[in-house]
Amino acid sequence: MRYVVGVDLGGTKTAAGVVAEDGSVLLTEQIPTLNRDGGEAILDATAAMVRSLIARAATLGATVEAVGVGSAGVINAAEGTVISATDAILGWTGTAITEGLTARLGLPSAVVNDVHAHALGEAWHGAGAGAPTALMVAFGTGVGGSFVVNGRPLLGHHFVGGHVGHFASPFAVYQGTPLPCSCGHAGHVEAISSGPAIHAAYLREGGSAALPDTKAVFESARCGDTLALAVIARAAAAAGQAVGGLINILDPAIVVVSGGLADAGELWWSGMETAMRAELLAPLAAVQVVRAKLGSTAAIVGAASLVLTQ
Amino acid sequence: MRYVVGVDLGGTKTAAGVVAEDGSVLLTEQIPTLNRDGGEAILDATAAMVRSLIARAATLGATVEAVGVGSAGVINAAEGTVISATDAILGWTGTAITEGLTARLGLPSAVVNDVHAHALGEAWHGAGAGAPTALMVAFGTGVGGSFVVNGRPLLGHHFVGGHVGHFASPFAVYQGTPLPCSCGHAGHVEAISSGPAIHAAYLREGGSAALPDTKAVFESARCGDTLALAVIARAAAAAGQAVGGLINILDPAIVVVSGGLADAGELWWSGMETAMRAELLAPLAAVQVVRAKLGSTAAIVGAASLVLTQ
Repeated sequence: MRYVVGVDLGGTKTAAGVVAEDGSVLLTEQIPTLNRDGGEAILDATAAMVRSLIARAATLGATVEAVGVGSAGVINAAEGTVISATDAILGWTGTAITEGLTARLGLPSAVVNDVHAHALGEAWHGAGAGAPTALMVAFGTGVGGSFVVNGRPLLGHHFVGGHVGHFASPFAVYQGTPLPCSCGHAGHVEAISSGPAIHAAYLREGGSAALPDTKAVFESARCGDTLALAVIARAAAAAGQAVGGLINILDPAIVVVSGGLADAGELWWSGMETAMRAELLAPLAAVQVVRAKLGSTAAIVGAASLVLTQ
Repeated sequence: MRYVVGVDLGGTKTAAGVVAEDGSVLLTEQIPTLNRDGGEAILDATAAMVRSLIARAATLGATVEAVGVGSAGVINAAEGTVISATDAILGWTGTAITEGLTARLGLPSAVVNDVHAHALGEAWHGAGAGAPTALMVAFGTGVGGSFVVNGRPLLGHHFVGGHVGHFASPFAVYQGTPLPCSCGHAGHVEAISSGPAIHAAYLREGGSAALPDTKAVFESARCGDTLALAVIARAAAAAGQAVGGLINILDPAIVVVSGGLADAGELWWSGMETAMRAELLAPLAAVQVVRAKLGSTAAIVGAASLVLTQ
């Protein structure tokens, strides 16, 4: 059996695991991402965690051959570098991830954006396993996705492919004005259907300021708060409408929906699915739309697949 | 030099041409599609036209090796059959195109949907030539498209991929109700931005019933008709917003816009382009968006490429 390490490098934490060629995860570790310290410090800390995993794997008789990384930011997967990243990770832009890790560890490495890594994990050994093409859409802090074709995500010419939260939604409007979006434009799917957008809508429309976050809005909805129910229903409808449109455009073999909202229960899922089905062209009516299965290990497994299967 | 015949089989006419391996078109012919007579009659007439082209090519010293077809309808490109077609071509559903043509002509053949053939032509030897990935979007009688990756269109799991006219548009609403769409649903891009949608909006909003079609609405707009200008501007904005969203999702190397509206002049194009640019994520701001170049030969050339390059 071959073994590699998969790394999921996010804005607040970096998780990694030893992954076997059959997709199973032997060991995992997690550290805070040194998101104020710059790219080289982050690579140092990541390499140290990988070394620790390699040592632990060795005690089980497993030899780690390579390192795959799913990283926050826009990632040039061909060169292994960070094209751009938000201030959530200061100094990450420009970092040579694969060169830096290979120099530190003496192992081959590869990197893609973390959303694509997540999708690769679900496509390889999660909810999309066995499907020739899989569309993954995540509704959480943001809205993102990836279209995996024959085991490879469509990364895009500028490595920006998969930004499925940034097209127009008829729901992303308030009192006649398109809602501002994280991308700097307005009226996009993410502006109405992300997790934070639900909380923002609740407050904007007169909901209690005592509810601190989206989780609290969901709890209030389950207790019969009609405004909370309405803003969740609208966000779910916007999400479903967006997913349905993407299915008409891409015609994937399977659709995997993930993220905090997909895990928030039937309240969101049933509204999303109803709106999604209402969009579908007749030949696509039976398309399978399923919840993600791998949870937080998806990106680790997908990052590992970069150096195991590609 | 190798030669093949490319066929563009549409609802009202079938055009074909002898295409060389360098993408040049030697000869063309055209016949009415026998759209009331059923699949076998259509194949008979198509094969007769191909035979005529083969004979004419022979007098020029060119030997035709194979036949590629772009056909209206949902086409199973793997099996060469018509999965479904509208009543525009009665009896087309279920027709075994490649088997039927190969039996009649004794030549290898291949088929894809005509929108994909059109895109393949532009990607191979038209406006998208040389680009590793090209998104083609056509605004005409309907709205359709194709994403060509390394010379191959993403056909989709049910061969329905590329239906880029069938996702939600914030513009596709009238007096609070989503506009009905040709697909049976409502509120889609096609319902507001197709050619016929422009004429329909003009009449719906009180424009002169004396204007018989979309062309007349454009002429009236050029003479200062403010309603005509407004409905064209709205359709162009809806088109541009849709194209911009698709660019964010797919991140193509180049975008080729075709169809009757793309050829209607600056009135439509400038409105489309402004709205499109307003949608783009920052790293995509410089993406090239160009008019199609091959005109009506695009699908012939693209169909030919099926048997020349794939």
